[in-house]
Amino acid sequence: MNASEIRELLKLLDQPDIISFAGGIPDPAQFPTQAIRDAYAAILSDPAKAAQALQYSVSEGYLPLRGWIRRHMEALGVPCTEANIMITAGSQQALDFIGKLFLSAGDTALVTAPTYLGALQAFNAYEPRYDTLGLEGGNRTPESYREAAAANGGRVGLAYLVADFANPSGETVSLPARQDLLTLAEALDTIVVEDAAYQALRYDGEAVPPLLALDIARSGGIEASRTLYCGTFSKTLAPALRVGWVCGASAAIAKLVLAKQAADLHCATINQMVMHQAAEAVYESQVASNRKVYKERRDAMLAALARHMPENVSWTRPEGGMFIWVTLPAGIDGADLLAQAIKDCRIAFVPGGAFYGEGRQNNKLRLSFSLSTPAQIEEGMARLGALLRRLG
Amino acid sequence: MNASEIRELLKLLDQPDIISFAGGIPDPAQFPTQAIRDAYAAILSDPAKAAQALQYSVSEGYLPLRGWIRRHMEALGVPCTEANIMITAGSQQALDFIGKLFLSAGDTALVTAPTYLGALQAFNAYEPRYDTLGLEGGNRTPESYREAAAANGGRVGLAYLVADFANPSGETVSLPARQDLLTLAEALDTIVVEDAAYQALRYDGEAVPPLLALDIARSGGIEASRTLYCGTFSKTLAPALRVGWVCGASAAIAKLVLAKQAADLHCATINQMVMHQAAEAVYESQVASNRKVYKERRDAMLAALARHMPENVSWTRPEGGMFIWVTLPAGIDGADLLAQAIKDCRIAFVPGGAFYGEGRQNNKLRLSFSLSTPAQIEEGMARLGALLRRLG
Repeated sequence: MNASEIRELLKLLDQPDIISFAGGIPDPAQFPTQAIRDAYAAILSDPAKAAQALQYSVSEGYLPLRGWIRRHMEALGVPCTEANIMITAGSQQALDFIGKLFLSAGDTALVTAPTYLGALQAFNAYEPRYDTLGLEGGNRTPESYREAAAANGGRVGLAYLVADFANPSGETVSLPARQDLLTLAEALDTIVVEDAAYQALRYDGEAVPPLLALDIARSGGIEASRTLYCGTFSKTLAPALRVGWVCGASAAIAKLVLAKQAADLHCATINQMVMHQAAEAVYESQVASNRKVYKERRDAMLAALARHMPENVSWTRPEGGMFIWVTLPAGIDGADLLAQAIKDCRIAFVPGGAFYGEGRQNNKLRLSFSLSTPAQIEEGMARLGALLRRLG
Repeated sequence: MNASEIRELLKLLDQPDIISFAGGIPDPAQFPTQAIRDAYAAILSDPAKAAQALQYSVSEGYLPLRGWIRRHMEALGVPCTEANIMITAGSQQALDFIGKLFLSAGDTALVTAPTYLGALQAFNAYEPRYDTLGLEGGNRTPESYREAAAANGGRVGLAYLVADFANPSGETVSLPARQDLLTLAEALDTIVVEDAAYQALRYDGEAVPPLLALDIARSGGIEASRTLYCGTFSKTLAPALRVGWVCGASAAIAKLVLAKQAADLHCATINQMVMHQAAEAVYESQVASNRKVYKERRDAMLAALARHMPENVSWTRPEGGMFIWVTLPAGIDGADLLAQAIKDCRIAFVPGGAFYGEGRQNNKLRLSFSLSTPAQIEEGMARLGALLRRLG
């Protein structure tokens, strides 16, 4: 099954009787609609603010929003100034610009296996080779990465990872593995791209400091750091205002600002002003509410998996985020299983094969628990378990 | 004077006593603030619409907005379907994606001299060579373009122009020159990128059909056409929602949709819904109001130039848009003149040198009349004329 066949299948998800665990998206019932509506109304009812909100603005982004993000980053252990922050159209756009700046055709991008599909799509435009970051207990030396990159006619342009509750694996990179990655990046003289899309959504366990915070502690300050932290309001407040950010050394941010100016001038001014106002008003309560609701769903899915999966199926136990990553017996192809699951038992998920830069494994599924009630999760896992038992 | 020195100078424009003709931006007094405010309020007060407006959506854009644009394009002589239209973050983003798809390093981009600076910035990321499109009475053969491109190790990837009331020249490409360009593009088997940012803002004279409409008439239909039309609401409704579009053959649009998905997933859903509602409600009256206000300012500037400029200065007479392009005596550098103009007579404009892909000319200025009252225009041109007379 190829990518366009999968896309065709996933279009069936609009059918109302399908229980879908495919979309890795927030539950719209969680959106702070009233705070956002109030912010649009307040800004557009003040003539001076309205004139600013509807007019062209600077590529680096709305300064008060960058101030809010500066304080947010400082609370995460990242002392910085507004010059270290640029607003992007979601964290996805930061990945595109970083690919544009740091990858030339033939260069190597280090990515986990599996990794976020959207990162591969963003980087693919710049024609890199992919090599696999083995984060926990990997035994690759810097030389082995460097030599493999050189053999492909390029250098290691960047190392990309979702460090917390990764899409698709749900896994979190441990503190020692983060330190090892920074050591590796230093040896390779390459940047680290920390995709923090899910970082705020921790349901239990201890928070691990962001790679950017660890990098700053090692290097002496953000200006000496090599990590670009990509954040977003998409999973905590709402995705469709398209407001995210990238934080790092000001020299890198200045280059990203030129890329932003060339690509789309700036993010919607009004949405940046609204996001600033909404973040000031409800960020903390939103994150608390998200954690409560999604934790319940994660717990329901872990319990249902334990109840219904055959013994030859295993899965990750995420401490946050939206995803559980399932490993099927070696002979079962996730994409074929999806076709059968939609047809026979009206459930859907994303087959795992697409999430690899190299070293593709097809006996994997990504299950998202963010959009389904505990009852739907129980019913869906029961159907999936029964299907897998029928397949032997 | 280099680009960063010019940027530093232009930062002075915030000083209140400067009369600026630099920014090529709409007058915020023209924004349909109430219609936009009403649309945000209506959408966010309806729970089902709010859930849609704040959620992830498809990369090609909000279907009802694409329907509105389809009818708009049909009225311009471009029969098409929604599959021929993708929503972009202003027309600037269409230029970035087109560069990404159609320019490889060493390829040639044909551009007018002068041309829109933002197009050069978007294309520069893909490392093209520039060659000059001589539109009116140029005598370059297709072979001469092809051979020069091949000598640089690439092909002609695209031909880009602002056909109506160009930024920066204010000039409109005639019907015969449009036909000649389509003939040239056919001979070179290259795409034509029609930047239509100002097309709706015609103040007098006869409208010339869009290149895409002429292309369709020649080729038999949009699916056989080679023109990508880049439109925007930035100059007619408001820039800061960041909503524009690209219209062309569906095979090209499908590739642009993949570029969009990789770059930032989609434009802000809520802004697309608001723009649809605002366009339905006020597009016609907005365009009428813009034409009235900006025509008066253009007329004021043409009259003031005639009154105050020395005989060795000439300028274009735009039939629409926001810009007049001034040619100084050969010895005067526009950037040096800007420094002196800000210091001595507190007026500003954009020096012309930046607007060239190749064949740069420095004795040029871009004057924008969109943001100034007729009285400010009269005063500003009087000061500029006096300065030029002092310089001899």
